[in-house]
Amino acid sequence: MSKYRSQIVELLHHNQHQYLSGQKIAEQLMISRTAVWKTIEQMKQQGFIIDSIQNKGHKLKSYPAEWDADIIQLVTRQSAYFKQQYVFKEVTSTQAVAKEKVLDNDRPFIVISEVQTAGKGRFNRQWDSQGDKGLWMSLVFSDEIPLYKITTFNLFISLAVARTIRSVSGAKAEVKWPNDIYINDYKCCGFLTEISGHANAIQQIICGIGINLNHQQADFPAELQHKATSIKEMTGETVDRYAFLDSLLSEIEHAYQQFLTHDFSDIKAEYKMYSNIWNRSLQYTEGTRKVTGQAVDILDDGRLVVRDEAGSIHHFISADIEI
Amino acid sequence: MSKYRSQIVELLHHNQHQYLSGQKIAEQLMISRTAVWKTIEQMKQQGFIIDSIQNKGHKLKSYPAEWDADIIQLVTRQSAYFKQQYVFKEVTSTQAVAKEKVLDNDRPFIVISEVQTAGKGRFNRQWDSQGDKGLWMSLVFSDEIPLYKITTFNLFISLAVARTIRSVSGAKAEVKWPNDIYINDYKCCGFLTEISGHANAIQQIICGIGINLNHQQADFPAELQHKATSIKEMTGETVDRYAFLDSLLSEIEHAYQQFLTHDFSDIKAEYKMYSNIWNRSLQYTEGTRKVTGQAVDILDDGRLVVRDEAGSIHHFISADIEI
Repeated sequence: MSKYRSQIVELLHHNQHQYLSGQKIAEQLMISRTAVWKTIEQMKQQGFIIDSIQNKGHKLKSYPAEWDADIIQLVTRQSAYFKQQYVFKEVTSTQAVAKEKVLDNDRPFIVISEVQTAGKGRFNRQWDSQGDKGLWMSLVFSDEIPLYKITTFNLFISLAVARTIRSVSGAKAEVKWPNDIYINDYKCCGFLTEISGHANAIQQIICGIGINLNHQQADFPAELQHKATSIKEMTGETVDRYAFLDSLLSEIEHAYQQFLTHDFSDIKAEYKMYSNIWNRSLQYTEGTRKVTGQAVDILDDGRLVVRDEAGSIHHFISADIEI
Repeated sequence: MSKYRSQIVELLHHNQHQYLSGQKIAEQLMISRTAVWKTIEQMKQQGFIIDSIQNKGHKLKSYPAEWDADIIQLVTRQSAYFKQQYVFKEVTSTQAVAKEKVLDNDRPFIVISEVQTAGKGRFNRQWDSQGDKGLWMSLVFSDEIPLYKITTFNLFISLAVARTIRSVSGAKAEVKWPNDIYINDYKCCGFLTEISGHANAIQQIICGIGINLNHQQADFPAELQHKATSIKEMTGETVDRYAFLDSLLSEIEHAYQQFLTHDFSDIKAEYKMYSNIWNRSLQYTEGTRKVTGQAVDILDDGRLVVRDEAGSIHHFISADIEI
């Protein structure tokens, strides 16, 4: 791969409104026009659509369908928090890769993969994450955090994901306590939060997120049809993965700072407005405990309060809820 | 290495009171006498002292100075909890190895190394762990444990280590809150507890323990002299590492079961009797906070209560205490 690729990607990315001449690119990067031309030809082969017109120059029209590490770097470079990213074509799961990398990386970072061959959700459930339809990534947060705080982490992150989907697509994303995002009662996102630390504090949070962006119903495996959806299926419009990633990272960073400096009680009112479990009778399962009832509140430590049909009150830490 | 080695080690280990003939060993293992003889010669080269007398047979007199994986397996096989062990001649730290192994091993296991080239204590402090003088190991516990419980884990483990030292050597080991063991105000053991899990529960506890068994004062680096000690230095008697490991594992397993099923309040009285910080003015440092005062209690969640010289009360989660 050309060593000027990332710089040329950056120049074209920032000049999508105009044509940039090969001469100008060459001068700016202090390289030969031949090197510019070769790199741009290579980029075209890799899926970049670049309009190249003699005597005018080059203009970036669209990105490759597959995640491109150079463009992801342009996106994450905006991040005040995540300073490193790893981009893969295929991994077992971004979570497994992230957990390996935290062993010798104590800074915040991101792992993104085009395909996961063994993506997992909570309860070790398989998460279907093929191809270029979605966003499969793990975010590693690295701060010393009191143990008691972590039980509300998922609630802050859910809100960030739902806000992003609403602002990018207009779809009315709702949070399903504790860590799923639904649109019209179909699931479009789930995430899994793992931690590492010592006996008195958490040091790293490894949060794996899967979001269905551009699936059609037929893309889901049979057992998920009529349960899963994508943003595109709900809005009819293709989601630009880079723009989505960009918005998501800034919402998540904002939510994470809130998580560090505030208590859940400070965002509870907003969280409850985004939630899709009120005023309906649902089945709650936690371990061997099964309760049918209505959610009535969320405690400040993140536990859900459910009133069963006989009027008894139950508290859940991380129940599975059937919708 | 002979594939019959572990079986021959086991036979000799269990028959240390008598001579076992090569013929008898061969029959029992259904192998040739030549194979027995070859394996025993090999074991002698590896440091086993075996008394071999013609027409009588073989008798195990002593073990190699270095940890032997087959003997460690005989010890850990007694364990109801730890079902796997990894024995190394040299690693950076058993903790680093254990943290790698937990990524694809969700059962409880033990990592032991003869030498650690980069052993670490709390606050990333170097832990001197050369040669065959001590026991450097990491224990990986694997159970779903509520987050709130973990803050008292170190207290249960300290008690187990102190009990072991007392019962094996007679030395009056004392616990120094939260995770050191002292004899006569010299440190002989420290440990480091790390955790991994998800947002609602801890799934694995990785506890690295370093215990000075047979050091002499000159074995410690200059900066630790007059601070560190070993059991042998205090009692004058060499500690048998296998016997010590055996006792330690059974004490720790007992303490761990207590930890799972009881609250700290149930062992608090005993813990306090083993503790060496009462009735003396000490300096407590936690982050940037420094307090000189007397410890007066331990709360049920493991926090230490200190009264400073002006009579004010301070709570510590994991202070460093200068003794």
